Amino acid sequence: MLNDHTVERLIIYNRILKNLYKNGQKLVTSKAIAQVLSNTSAQVRRDLSSLGRKGKTGVGYDIGKLIDDIDGVLGLNRKWGLLLVGAGNLGRALFYYPGFRREGFEFRMIVDKDPRKIGKKWSGVEINSSTALRRKIRNKQIDIAVISVPADRAQEVAERVVSSGVNEIMNFAPVTLNVPEGVNVRYVDLALELENLSYQLAVRKKR
Amino acid sequence: MLNDHTVERLIIYNRILKNLYKNGQKLVTSKAIAQVLSNTSAQVRRDLSSLGRKGKTGVGYDIGKLIDDIDGVLGLNRKWGLLLVGAGNLGRALFYYPGFRREGFEFRMIVDKDPRKIGKKWSGVEINSSTALRRKIRNKQIDIAVISVPADRAQEVAERVVSSGVNEIMNFAPVTLNVPEGVNVRYVDLALELENLSYQLAVRKKR
Repeated sequence: MLNDHTVERLIIYNRILKNLYKNGQKLVTSKAIAQVLSNTSAQVRRDLSSLGRKGKTGVGYDIGKLIDDIDGVLGLNRKWGLLLVGAGNLGRALFYYPGFRREGFEFRMIVDKDPRKIGKKWSGVEINSSTALRRKIRNKQIDIAVISVPADRAQEVAERVVSSGVNEIMNFAPVTLNVPEGVNVRYVDLALELENLSYQLAVRKKR
Repeated sequence: MLNDHTVERLIIYNRILKNLYKNGQKLVTSKAIAQVLSNTSAQVRRDLSSLGRKGKTGVGYDIGKLIDDIDGVLGLNRKWGLLLVGAGNLGRALFYYPGFRREGFEFRMIVDKDPRKIGKKWSGVEINSSTALRRKIRNKQIDIAVISVPADRAQEVAERVVSSGVNEIMNFAPVTLNVPEGVNVRYVDLALELENLSYQLAVRKKR
């Protein structure tokens, strides 16, 4: 397994490469990639050789092949099925966020506990209650549960999702979840980002 | 200036402490804080002593005072004025995200380029066009611009915001911004999170 920093660099390389490819470029040197990132060419070559791909001296890498390689490693060459838990403002924003679909993430199911929302559809996906969740998700091929409920409901929701057989969680609620071993939680904590920003502002204002 | 990891730990301590305080607890030991975080007590004491606060042996820290200290360092004891650029689904979710207000972040202005949105109000805050931005924000005390426009418009928006005198940016567009020195950008990159998650899933599925 690659470490987090390598994965993050691969993601960024991939973006740069896809941009170049879209503009009609076919070849790129490690030096050119390094320049965009204020990185060293040696680092770029090391990262790319971890994919088993070598550039030709003086010519560079085949951009198309490199994109295929990276997409393969990152799992971006296939579709992942998403369950959205929490159809509030944040849930809506996530559901309609174009980045999800572009990267092969498909919302296949939405649950919410508000009876006024149940039965409504977002782009053809119906909002359900979370009762009998295991049965409802059986044929939906759900890989990831996206949790966008208030902090005080997130733990309960996570337990329900896990007991329904989903082992990957992307949590937007500003709270740490207790989950059994083997369940993977990724946190996107807006409040944490805000508090970090607040600290930086506070330091600057004091100067 | 504290390093990023220390700031993040302070943020987490603060959450734990506020929770304890809400439940009526007045004192806490470094060991108890450490346990919640799977951290060492020595680490907790080191972090808290950087605030100039010492616990009493066998008694612990005064939770109320500790919260005041951390709020002060993080700048959470004052209000920050926010400008939202981009009143789409993500912008709406951010605007109504309760975490902002709770931490003292107030959206004081919204701009969007869609004429159908201009003139509408969200919780009393009117959506404006971004023409003559500097003049419009003059009396609003804007500390931070929150950018939630599509990737291909983010750079242009950032330049407009910076030239209007705002030096702190929180960027939700999945793109790196070029800004002059002295401007601070904090990235919240949902696509990056997704691609990371995709990698982890891909690794697990291959096992």
